Amino acid sequence: MNYKTQMEAAKKGIITEAMKIVSQKEQITEDLILKRVAAGSIAIPSNINHKSLNPEGIGAGLRTKINVNLGISGDCPDYKREFEKVKMSIALKAESIMDLSNYGKTFSFREKLIDYSSAMIGTVPIYDVIGYLEKKLIDISAEDFLKVVELHAKQGVDFMTIHAGINRNTVSKFKESGRLTNIVSRGGSLLFAWMELTGNENPFYEYYDDVLDVFNKYDVTISLGDALRPGSTADSTDCGQITELIELGLLTKRAWASNVQVMVEGPGHMAINEIEANMRLQKRLCHNAPFYVLGPLVTDIAPGYDHITSAIGGAIAASSGADFLCYVTPAEHLRLPDLQDVKDGIIAAKIAAHAADIAKGIPGARDIDDRMSAARQRVDWECMYECALDPEKARNYRESVAVENESTCSMCGKMCAMRTTSAILEGRDLDI
Amino acid sequence: MNYKTQMEAAKKGIITEAMKIVSQKEQITEDLILKRVAAGSIAIPSNINHKSLNPEGIGAGLRTKINVNLGISGDCPDYKREFEKVKMSIALKAESIMDLSNYGKTFSFREKLIDYSSAMIGTVPIYDVIGYLEKKLIDISAEDFLKVVELHAKQGVDFMTIHAGINRNTVSKFKESGRLTNIVSRGGSLLFAWMELTGNENPFYEYYDDVLDVFNKYDVTISLGDALRPGSTADSTDCGQITELIELGLLTKRAWASNVQVMVEGPGHMAINEIEANMRLQKRLCHNAPFYVLGPLVTDIAPGYDHITSAIGGAIAASSGADFLCYVTPAEHLRLPDLQDVKDGIIAAKIAAHAADIAKGIPGARDIDDRMSAARQRVDWECMYECALDPEKARNYRESVAVENESTCSMCGKMCAMRTTSAILEGRDLDI
Repeated sequence: MNYKTQMEAAKKGIITEAMKIVSQKEQITEDLILKRVAAGSIAIPSNINHKSLNPEGIGAGLRTKINVNLGISGDCPDYKREFEKVKMSIALKAESIMDLSNYGKTFSFREKLIDYSSAMIGTVPIYDVIGYLEKKLIDISAEDFLKVVELHAKQGVDFMTIHAGINRNTVSKFKESGRLTNIVSRGGSLLFAWMELTGNENPFYEYYDDVLDVFNKYDVTISLGDALRPGSTADSTDCGQITELIELGLLTKRAWASNVQVMVEGPGHMAINEIEANMRLQKRLCHNAPFYVLGPLVTDIAPGYDHITSAIGGAIAASSGADFLCYVTPAEHLRLPDLQDVKDGIIAAKIAAHAADIAKGIPGARDIDDRMSAARQRVDWECMYECALDPEKARNYRESVAVENESTCSMCGKMCAMRTTSAILEGRDLDI
Repeated sequence: MNYKTQMEAAKKGIITEAMKIVSQKEQITEDLILKRVAAGSIAIPSNINHKSLNPEGIGAGLRTKINVNLGISGDCPDYKREFEKVKMSIALKAESIMDLSNYGKTFSFREKLIDYSSAMIGTVPIYDVIGYLEKKLIDISAEDFLKVVELHAKQGVDFMTIHAGINRNTVSKFKESGRLTNIVSRGGSLLFAWMELTGNENPFYEYYDDVLDVFNKYDVTISLGDALRPGSTADSTDCGQITELIELGLLTKRAWASNVQVMVEGPGHMAINEIEANMRLQKRLCHNAPFYVLGPLVTDIAPGYDHITSAIGGAIAASSGADFLCYVTPAEHLRLPDLQDVKDGIIAAKIAAHAADIAKGIPGARDIDDRMSAARQRVDWECMYECALDPEKARNYRESVAVENESTCSMCGKMCAMRTTSAILEGRDLDI
């Protein structure tokens, strides 16, 4: 092979196997995929060591993808349960899984995960640094951080969140402008603490070129983390967030110069009226790099229902340009999600992504909706279940209540509008 | 009293008790409320016979309100359960309840409801015509329809959905242009069937002035129903929908000329990219009358989760001008909602309404979010629960998993970003 990364191949005019697969999945020509991978507006995260991967593209003109977070943590170190989440995520067609493990046997869990998963795998190496190295934060060296990054890369992780944008400049602006909820990014807060405790520059910023060398070697996509993503609607689009975004735009160009694929991470909590402007700002400042958003959550007051606040923000974000949605579960802000939370989070994220794809005019996006609508018009329940995002839930709902008339449901019974209208248009008798 | 309706009072420069209450609730001067009620851009549905009402305004510059649908139906004639829904709706601060009963003792249920409810009450009289009169649809006369309208008005119903816009002109356009899902409005389909079977004009259109006389007498607000609301994303913003909307705009002016307050009902199913344009179109064609929307559902393929598809559409609609959101429950398209469905529907609608109010800059809307965010920053769980839309669910979620550290939750444990950042900024020791 005369290339190391998808981006290098694209720049050399080589259509890779991954590009071919993406082209087929997205109904977009191989040539256009190649051009966009070369320009950086599409990323195909695909570590050369992730053999079981079924590659997906993320970016301009493609279907909106979704990511599921899971992993082993100190308060809930249940390996089996976390693997159940993996299986469910793949069964529900999530395109990506981030393993956020930060406790215990992270290495072997990740190994098993990469071996099993056809979905792309992401990690946040800094979460793993403390657990894996068994050191206190202040005792960790810049080399330690890079060591864990290399370990993940070698194992086959397709993309990694690297919070390289929270450098001294960003921290100084954040401190000067002040905030209601300071730093809510877990990785960001650890790096901030490390920088303040050691007096050193952010190691991912200072040694960014070394990080890129590793990423280039294994074709890891860099997901530029937003340490200062707003943790409340009060903090969104503020000095800290935008200062960091400017840094991320500069870091994007540097990564591309090394043929490393890039995604940029985004907010967070944000009122509806700011979302579209944020999408445009990111696309401009980050040179059309794919935008990966968490939420945004459009209000702060709905713990227990943040899959919904996030679906609202995610749908608006994706229809205004975001390419990749991180799921949020009902457990957000409250506990580690259980299996049902994971399912609810995935479905809500898929709704947001799909609704955005219809709005964006992604090729074929509405076909399944039209099949569903035609089935509703025929009152064809089996076909409706088939078209449903969650066929089992739809079936259980309807069948939980006995109905007088086989063709209807208990909502309207024999006053079903579909049934009434069709009877008239088709000249059949009405029994009401 | 030298006025019959809120609108008449407003036109005469009289500030009513209801206007004073709305002014206090909304932090908007009595004078501005009066001007907008006179102009029709705010409605205060308040039947003179609804003595227990705590009035709310709907429209320009006011908080977005939400409505809960319930009622007795043939497949689930459970009076007690429906009344449990009423109690829950009021406890959860829904501003409006529509009683869609169409079976059995509708009169006495409605009587009890109006007597009990501080929330405004709406009905769709045509649902009640068949059940109450015990006649077949084809045997019902135009006078029968009006009789039921008058009965509801006298009982104290604050607003009624009247599908007066589906007249011969609208039907002819609908038939000519064709549709994937025809008519999905229950009331609209019944009127369409009646018109086709009898050959008569829509009685609510033909005898619109008689309807207005009744509404004027009791100060019932007319909610102009959208019989041709799109039942699929394929049908939205089509010839049928917009033809009817034009009729609703004309009917709005006629109602105002009779001092009858007006709301206009809207879609339905609709892709995200069409929502804002629809809001502007309604406001223009209907002369800024308050817009009452069902959904819109932004995809068709999520039965079992339509409270989420609707929250997405409702939040976008309300932030672009809609004033009043009808809740949609997870049971939509599948069965009559049970108590849990009703709760889920209410919370989802409240999220959408509140997120829109933040976006619209409604006075004080974000105060509760800022209190929540400040509590998060302090890691003050009791205050977070207090600020939550559903305190009980938030508490149960967090407390369902034991945590090592009292101040955190099982999501991040001792790696809590809030805790880490505060420790550094406040110069405390870190235990990680």
